Amino acid sequence: MAQKIILDCDPGHDDAIAILLAHGSPEIELLAVTTVAGNQTLEKVTRNALAVAEIAGITGVPFAAGCARPLVRPVEVAPDIHGESGMDGPVLPEPTLELDSRHAVDLIIETVMAHESGTVTLVPTGALTNIAIAARKEPRIVSRVKEIVLMGGGYHGGNWSATSEFNIIIDPEAAHIVFNESWPLTMVGIDLTHQALATPEVVENFRAMPTAPGRFVVDLLEFFGTTYLEAQGFEHPPVHDPCAVAYVIDPSVMTVRKTPLDIELTGTLTLGMTVADFRSPAPADCTTQVAVDLDHAKFWALVADAVTRIGDPQSTA
Amino acid sequence: MAQKIILDCDPGHDDAIAILLAHGSPEIELLAVTTVAGNQTLEKVTRNALAVAEIAGITGVPFAAGCARPLVRPVEVAPDIHGESGMDGPVLPEPTLELDSRHAVDLIIETVMAHESGTVTLVPTGALTNIAIAARKEPRIVSRVKEIVLMGGGYHGGNWSATSEFNIIIDPEAAHIVFNESWPLTMVGIDLTHQALATPEVVENFRAMPTAPGRFVVDLLEFFGTTYLEAQGFEHPPVHDPCAVAYVIDPSVMTVRKTPLDIELTGTLTLGMTVADFRSPAPADCTTQVAVDLDHAKFWALVADAVTRIGDPQSTA
Amino acid sequence: MAQKIILDCDPGHDDAIAILLAHGSPEIELLAVTTVAGNQTLEKVTRNALAVAEIAGITGVPFAAGCARPLVRPVEVAPDIHGESGMDGPVLPEPTLELDSRHAVDLIIETVMAHESGTVTLVPTGALTNIAIAARKEPRIVSRVKEIVLMGGGYHGGNWSATSEFNIIIDPEAAHIVFNESWPLTMVGIDLTHQALATPEVVENFRAMPTAPGRFVVDLLEFFGTTYLEAQGFEHPPVHDPCAVAYVIDPSVMTVRKTPLDIELTGTLTLGMTVADFRSPAPADCTTQVAVDLDHAKFWALVADAVTRIGDPQSTA
Amino acid sequence: MAQKIILDCDPGHDDAIAILLAHGSPEIELLAVTTVAGNQTLEKVTRNALAVAEIAGITGVPFAAGCARPLVRPVEVAPDIHGESGMDGPVLPEPTLELDSRHAVDLIIETVMAHESGTVTLVPTGALTNIAIAARKEPRIVSRVKEIVLMGGGYHGGNWSATSEFNIIIDPEAAHIVFNESWPLTMVGIDLTHQALATPEVVENFRAMPTAPGRFVVDLLEFFGTTYLEAQGFEHPPVHDPCAVAYVIDPSVMTVRKTPLDIELTGTLTLGMTVADFRSPAPADCTTQVAVDLDHAKFWALVADAVTRIGDPQSTA
Repeated sequence: MAQKIILDCDPGHDDAIAILLAHGSPEIELLAVTTVAGNQTLEKVTRNALAVAEIAGITGVPFAAGCARPLVRPVEVAPDIHGESGMDGPVLPEPTLELDSRHAVDLIIETVMAHESGTVTLVPTGALTNIAIAARKEPRIVSRVKEIVLMGGGYHGGNWSATSEFNIIIDPEAAHIVFNESWPLTMVGIDLTHQALATPEVVENFRAMPTAPGRFVVDLLEFFGTTYLEAQGFEHPPVHDPCAVAYVIDPSVMTVRKTPLDIELTGTLTLGMTVADFRSPAPADCTTQVAVDLDHAKFWALVADAVTRIGDPQSTA
Repeated sequence: MAQKIILDCDPGHDDAIAILLAHGSPEIELLAVTTVAGNQTLEKVTRNALAVAEIAGITGVPFAAGCARPLVRPVEVAPDIHGESGMDGPVLPEPTLELDSRHAVDLIIETVMAHESGTVTLVPTGALTNIAIAARKEPRIVSRVKEIVLMGGGYHGGNWSATSEFNIIIDPEAAHIVFNESWPLTMVGIDLTHQALATPEVVENFRAMPTAPGRFVVDLLEFFGTTYLEAQGFEHPPVHDPCAVAYVIDPSVMTVRKTPLDIELTGTLTLGMTVADFRSPAPADCTTQVAVDLDHAKFWALVADAVTRIGDPQSTA
Repeated sequence: MAQKIILDCDPGHDDAIAILLAHGSPEIELLAVTTVAGNQTLEKVTRNALAVAEIAGITGVPFAAGCARPLVRPVEVAPDIHGESGMDGPVLPEPTLELDSRHAVDLIIETVMAHESGTVTLVPTGALTNIAIAARKEPRIVSRVKEIVLMGGGYHGGNWSATSEFNIIIDPEAAHIVFNESWPLTMVGIDLTHQALATPEVVENFRAMPTAPGRFVVDLLEFFGTTYLEAQGFEHPPVHDPCAVAYVIDPSVMTVRKTPLDIELTGTLTLGMTVADFRSPAPADCTTQVAVDLDHAKFWALVADAVTRIGDPQSTA
Repeated sequence: MAQKIILDCDPGHDDAIAILLAHGSPEIELLAVTTVAGNQTLEKVTRNALAVAEIAGITGVPFAAGCARPLVRPVEVAPDIHGESGMDGPVLPEPTLELDSRHAVDLIIETVMAHESGTVTLVPTGALTNIAIAARKEPRIVSRVKEIVLMGGGYHGGNWSATSEFNIIIDPEAAHIVFNESWPLTMVGIDLTHQALATPEVVENFRAMPTAPGRFVVDLLEFFGTTYLEAQGFEHPPVHDPCAVAYVIDPSVMTVRKTPLDIELTGTLTLGMTVADFRSPAPADCTTQVAVDLDHAKFWALVADAVTRIGDPQSTA
């Protein structure tokens, strides 16, 4: 049976690929896509999400806009990685899908409450602002959510500071809320996603697809390759967000390790660090785990398969 | 013209008197009463709010429950001051008013958006969790709210720690959000409210009223007097929350001083401190001010007048 | 019997007056003068201390240089208050007194250990770096020192940040060490010293003295008046440091209040705050107190008397 | 030419082996041994250091006691690892060597100042209290020291908290001082020392030595093996401190990586973390590096060789 997920994202190149993976995979039932400020402003990432829906031919799935800024901190965006639009590179179509009128927080709450308890997985691939507010506004979702599988953090170092990853450090209070709730939580952090590199072989595989979504992926990866080389010195860009979706599709795509996790809120050098405690085996009641090793071939095969299944929605329209 | 307010509270003895003052004063149009965990759990303070509505004969005003816990910190309640029920002392009637089905956050947002911009004052007398989430969920309320007049904080010391007051320290992140938004904000802190003492003369004045609300106030003040003497050594109890309402009714009831304000989030000794900077005159664009000196007689006259106007709703029913 | 003191200072205009007061008062036996970076660099404040010795005709008292920077933080100096030299205004004589070869930390330790236990008072009027290191290097001094009477801090606000005073915030870790040791400690903070204003009457009184030290005091106060007006808006300058010496001479010059004190080390807004807990009476074993109200006339009479007693050392030489 | 070192330690089982290695290696000229509170109280670790001198026949090297507690924090010791004496296990001889009368801080300063600049390496294997105070008391040592090679910290996790190692977390302010000075600094942290395991083969090798120092090492390792198994789950105990000495003897015993390092002082979860920034190549002016991979065989061969060279001092006396 397909896994029901809500994808909470801030597209963003790798978010776009995460949407494609979620939409194209038969193992996923995409209940909703919600957006949050992060890689770019809320307005931009929401427009980008709708553009991805257009390219991928997504219909019948509610898309809703969420929080325009983090809980406590000022907005911080990442144009050096994602460009001014938040998804520079591809030429984006004009969206035809209309936004759901609800706020993302309410869409998340209502969707979780409307489905059987233990069936909906939340997959956040941006700042955790929406998820945190949803948990505070409607605490009953915490026990109803099946699990959280998020892209963010890192147990051995960061990318936005020495210790902290972008999605977490831009709203550390929200992350603190989400990581300290009692739901099962899998952190797919940069320890894992820095293994999800878009090597030339990966890119060529998508280039060989004779479809608009295939070309879209190539355009995303090529832009991403340029900025990641310039901003962070990567030879091939790490494609973070679809890793979280891939774990929902097939947990064997990566190894995980159960470990206590918490978020540092007061450190001068370590604000937003996802602190893992590896000193001894995780206690029996530990509900958190981190992703460790990626099966690179299996991961990219999942993405390629999904994009292939999507086909060429616009040309068939 | 009467001032439109939303009272966001956690009754609580002094919150109850604040509700009576808001309801009984011809200068106030009470648009909504919302509740938040603080003096006791959300369930208890919400039931208490409805009981006050019963006693005061409030009808036609939506009452809605809000957040059951602070943003980041665990719930902390104050039974040593307010008792196990959150309003120990008076015998409370069974409420007949039904709760509004909306969440407090949504009721606040919808009420502010439904009224003309610049006409609705928010009067929080508990933790600022609801107000903070409302501002993040619907940022447009910030410029539409007329002002925030809150009971909380203290510029020269606290009551829950050496530096910090209960309403602020139990949800300092929410306070940080609210104090750093651009709306005009008046902090009626314990510097002011420790002047609002229920002296024997004050209590006798209410005792002389031949009404249920008058007796209710006496019961509240007598219980409050006992706990404040035992817990904090006060000879006569400070009655905090109606001070904020009184300021909306008649600003001349207290002096205020314009000063920059911010909330300490990382201090070991000073977490939740409302930091005022008195070193030089506040800058012209400063939107925050603190209450300094109370006109004790005028304040209690406002409360007595309101309770008198309420009359004896149940006996006339 | 005269009180034995070690004056640990960073002259500094008001430090200079503190030295004069200590030297000229028959109630004080000045055992040593030690210097520490603060109002200006160690080199400058040490030269200034020797210049004051020259003007005041101090001989037979060891002067020693101490720490050139705070424990953990970078050096911060106060040229906007004390000028580039640290004692701008007066024309300073070339010192003839030679520095003691010992480090201030060792001079403090050796002096305390050489005198009977309970007889030596430490009077720090700058950053607490030297005192803190002395306490760590030779812990036995803590029980041997009679008391610490320091100028620094403030229980109701600061001058270098909203909450913190210069001497404490420039080396908060040293202050934390000193305030948390078991010795009796009197904090003469800006709550008190902002009452020690050099009014025109005060200045005229010194101007009437026909001596070099009298003229020196006038020059100091006039420069101080100018910078305090410009930098902090004071009509008449507060003369901080001699207040601590005055308290040793005659405790009746000010009222004090016993209260727990501690130093905030991690606050974002409150770093270096001297946190006093006034919520309830200080516990019986509380060893710290704060100065509250100054007898302005008595204070300045003590200073004037001391400067008069010093006479005109250079002209009699 | 032999490397001149000052060994600043808190024996401690592994400190004892570090002393043996330093004394027995022809590549090391041991200028002084200084002690600091850490593994046990200052009194105990100092007595232990003298006992090691007795066992190893060390004469003509000054041993001096230093700071009895960290700069800011209360004393914390590690009896679960080192026992009540700080060196439980071996039967210790009565020391005959007398302590140098100087404080460790002064011995360090005087030794560094007395030798040619750039020739003395400091090897701290305990808390950095003495080194930090020496740097503040006599700043000229910073440019005269050849380098700091310390045992402490960890770039990927701690042993005393999730992120922090014992030597650093017990005096993080001292570590902040030492790590932020301009001297070259090599951090031999637990990333490295957890590779320096005393496997059964290692222990047997020492057991085969027919000397008191050989038996002493066996007793140390056997006790250490027991406590590390119980307290931290190690199959074979990590022998931290001699690793730092080994690096001075022969840098090829480990690989190192140049990287910026700093100490977290305000983190709730991360206090005392040695924050390394691996995001990009270290800047050219970076003076800090971390030890990464140990040559286990070469390391233990160095230790065995040193213990062999020491022979059996007491029997020959």
